[in-house]
Amino acid sequence: MTLIILGHPDWEKSLANKEIVNGLVNSEANVEVRNLQQLYPDFKIDIKKEQEALLRHKNIVFQFPFYWYTMPAILKHWFDLVLEYGFAYGSTGNKLRGKNFIPSFTVGSAENEYKTLGEHHFRIPDFCKNLEQTAYYTQMNYIEPFYFHGTSLNAGYTKDEIRSKAKDQAGKLAELLKTLE
Amino acid sequence: MTLIILGHPDWEKSLANKEIVNGLVNSEANVEVRNLQQLYPDFKIDIKKEQEALLRHKNIVFQFPFYWYTMPAILKHWFDLVLEYGFAYGSTGNKLRGKNFIPSFTVGSAENEYKTLGEHHFRIPDFCKNLEQTAYYTQMNYIEPFYFHGTSLNAGYTKDEIRSKAKDQAGKLAELLKTLE
Repeated sequence: MTLIILGHPDWEKSLANKEIVNGLVNSEANVEVRNLQQLYPDFKIDIKKEQEALLRHKNIVFQFPFYWYTMPAILKHWFDLVLEYGFAYGSTGNKLRGKNFIPSFTVGSAENEYKTLGEHHFRIPDFCKNLEQTAYYTQMNYIEPFYFHGTSLNAGYTKDEIRSKAKDQAGKLAELLKTLE
Repeated sequence: MTLIILGHPDWEKSLANKEIVNGLVNSEANVEVRNLQQLYPDFKIDIKKEQEALLRHKNIVFQFPFYWYTMPAILKHWFDLVLEYGFAYGSTGNKLRGKNFIPSFTVGSAENEYKTLGEHHFRIPDFCKNLEQTAYYTQMNYIEPFYFHGTSLNAGYTKDEIRSKAKDQAGKLAELLKTLE
């Protein structure tokens, strides 16, 4: 079973992330979605409840839009609070051992600017070392980031284009989850 | 003049960050401190006020404890909200151009585990690409991260040791700020 920790700060306006999550919910995959913005609009995360949700699942998907080259604050707050000493790390903190850590995100602008001489200068995995090492430190299996580019209306993509790409992505993610079972 | 954007989620308990900030305030450096946790305990950041503070200064120091290999959520929230399109980036978003972007943080555990075969697997600058590229995208001058290790009581350091190292760090940071004027 798969847990989706959804860290989108503006869910009403979401196109791509909404399509991906809805696609998964309507797929054969057995998913539980925790929409952090809806659950905790005041950022007061219920640590116990979040830890209990983690214990129910083998696959943990972190779904979010890339904001300033990493996750939005609401999801970072979840990491800061929920992955406690004694639960996720430390000599007795092994509750996440062996679970799959699956970063899944959307990048607003085009792929061809994410290179040394491009506008964004780094490749996407270069921005994910903190996620990768968080997985290692909590004894989880780090799955390579699952993402796609071109989800920003400001960057000139149309709603139809974005939804269509996101729908494809949902299908691929459902396939990936099957291989992880 | 220097602006310190202080992103510590637990200021009451802070040892190292408190010593650094107090050290700077009591130095010859002309600093304005914005303690995000105290200003916005409910995460409702006043975007306009924060942007006005940025406009008043040349040096922008981001002071925080390293949490899960990057900044804590309260500081990420500041980035997500304050660095708006049209202010910090975009065709007319050049309000931060030429200002100095100075990451200054404390790392709880020892330096010798931050290497490929160590417990934390990556070097500190490997975790800072998102900060670095945020500076480039907002046309700021990225200053190499200013940090030191060994600020965690859990990792076995004493309060006196931590305060003493942090006091040294404050002095070095004040010197650095002088060179940037």
